Amino acid sequence: MTNRQIVLDQIPQGKLTPEHFRLTEGETPSPGEGEVLLRSRYISLDAANRAWMQGATYRSALQGGQVMAGGGLSEVVESNVGHLKPGDLVFADAGWQEYATLPGKHLSKLPDLKPETHLLSVYGIAGLTAYFGLLECGQPKAGDTVVVSAAAGSVGSIVGQIAKIKGCRVVGIAGGEEKGRWLTEELGFDAAVDYKSAEFKRRLREAVPDGIDVYFDNTGGDVFEACLFAMKNHGRIACCGALSQYDGAPPPHGPRGIPGLIVTKRLTLRGFVVMDFAAQNDKALSDLQAWVASGQLKVQEDVIDGLENLPQALIGLLAGENRGKRMVRV
Amino acid sequence: MTNRQIVLDQIPQGKLTPEHFRLTEGETPSPGEGEVLLRSRYISLDAANRAWMQGATYRSALQGGQVMAGGGLSEVVESNVGHLKPGDLVFADAGWQEYATLPGKHLSKLPDLKPETHLLSVYGIAGLTAYFGLLECGQPKAGDTVVVSAAAGSVGSIVGQIAKIKGCRVVGIAGGEEKGRWLTEELGFDAAVDYKSAEFKRRLREAVPDGIDVYFDNTGGDVFEACLFAMKNHGRIACCGALSQYDGAPPPHGPRGIPGLIVTKRLTLRGFVVMDFAAQNDKALSDLQAWVASGQLKVQEDVIDGLENLPQALIGLLAGENRGKRMVRV
Repeated sequence: MTNRQIVLDQIPQGKLTPEHFRLTEGETPSPGEGEVLLRSRYISLDAANRAWMQGATYRSALQGGQVMAGGGLSEVVESNVGHLKPGDLVFADAGWQEYATLPGKHLSKLPDLKPETHLLSVYGIAGLTAYFGLLECGQPKAGDTVVVSAAAGSVGSIVGQIAKIKGCRVVGIAGGEEKGRWLTEELGFDAAVDYKSAEFKRRLREAVPDGIDVYFDNTGGDVFEACLFAMKNHGRIACCGALSQYDGAPPPHGPRGIPGLIVTKRLTLRGFVVMDFAAQNDKALSDLQAWVASGQLKVQEDVIDGLENLPQALIGLLAGENRGKRMVRV
Repeated sequence: MTNRQIVLDQIPQGKLTPEHFRLTEGETPSPGEGEVLLRSRYISLDAANRAWMQGATYRSALQGGQVMAGGGLSEVVESNVGHLKPGDLVFADAGWQEYATLPGKHLSKLPDLKPETHLLSVYGIAGLTAYFGLLECGQPKAGDTVVVSAAAGSVGSIVGQIAKIKGCRVVGIAGGEEKGRWLTEELGFDAAVDYKSAEFKRRLREAVPDGIDVYFDNTGGDVFEACLFAMKNHGRIACCGALSQYDGAPPPHGPRGIPGLIVTKRLTLRGFVVMDFAAQNDKALSDLQAWVASGQLKVQEDVIDGLENLPQALIGLLAGENRGKRMVRV
């Protein structure tokens, strides 16, 4: 069996392009002791994929020449561990390839939830990130004004809907009028603000006339700065990502108002990674399933076919072309 | 009776100079209904005095032509409220003048603690700021590495000593070798780093080889950025002030690494103002008194004589010439 793979050929210095990747074919590996052989079904596209190319984060920096890293939904083909059998689905850091062997001990069988793509979106990292980031780091109360950036993305679209479920007034920041209409008309956001507008700062202020209680930040940069200046006293900022800063050289400066506004407004900023809350996953999944079942939480997925389309799918995600959770069916 | 006053004649645009102030004499006011007449005994000098000139903070911005604002230890001379009588000491926002009338309802009689200057230092805003900022926002555990900036100042010198009492390893950042020796030899800090050194960043790294668990920030700016990059995963930053940014125009940019490092290191940054914790003042004062009595907490005060010396005392404080709590005896 051949194993089609996408190799990250070179670490980009500026913007990521298709030329940084190369499609290749390797041998399908055999699982050793304690290992499983996995076949990729859906590979998740995430802004963090690009951040891993910039340097060490919560994982080591990627190196040129390696199979591109990425998580996804995989099916167990062969198993040398007792708790997994062929046909089981797992979430695995299997990379951009058809087949991979991995140690079985960190893998666990996913629950039988349908459609299975939801295991990568609302019941996967995106949904859990939205859930824990908003509720644990943001601590929203009913009546609070919650703002989320990259609001039409996989995490942001769920953050806003959970905030609505919790009784908050929700403003989404996204690129373009069309995404804004989708957020307000389909997902129930109270307002949307286009960060690409020349009037962005004024429109943000108009959308939050009394200020922001909770800001869920996916972007960093100018959007972060604008929200920082609009925070209420005792506001909370959940720091989830810095999408605006991944695809290119790191910016030479940070946002103004740090740390002065943190002090005078008595803000709390908290960075998090979803794994930090793994002990609470059961409660989170139970809530998310109930909200999906009741129709309070709508799940938007953006599924692209073909392993060979992974590079363009990531590049497009970084340019903001997706709505909801983007993944590639292998 | 005449009432000598220091008026803030003009709001400074760049560095604060003596020419921004003017000494004048007014009439001593008479207390109205519900008011008290106060005589200033000691006026507190704080970096925040300069921040108030930049714009609204947790109080309205100062205006040119007003008596300079400032808190201090005052004695009640006449009282039209039942809970205060002549001779009582209060902490009051009475401004830079000999006499002031204020509504009595927000004033309370201070406990009879000696020396009375301690009511402005370790048992006043400086001590409580150090206590709550470190323990509530910093959440230090025994064995943690705690770093504090403006470490020889009124707040920083107490922060470092409380951290030692709590079993932490403590590194102070201060300007100059002499202050550093005072911190390590007199106050028991484990190390000191001179931020004015051309080798500052390297020396900071050497002083915290395993990274920083808790950073108590009094300065913002380059020192904040250097500490941010040296934080451990799950570290906490208590944002207390931005001393480096008060005396001049606000900087055009903030520190690098925001919000990226907050996310990847899962940091918590929390801004605070001492009044937020007023409900816990009794416990804090009881701890502080016990530590002073046992000799574990040394109190350094820098008392300057004469109301007319207030402008120069503040300008010198902003230049870092003080050790411990600076105040002017009126």
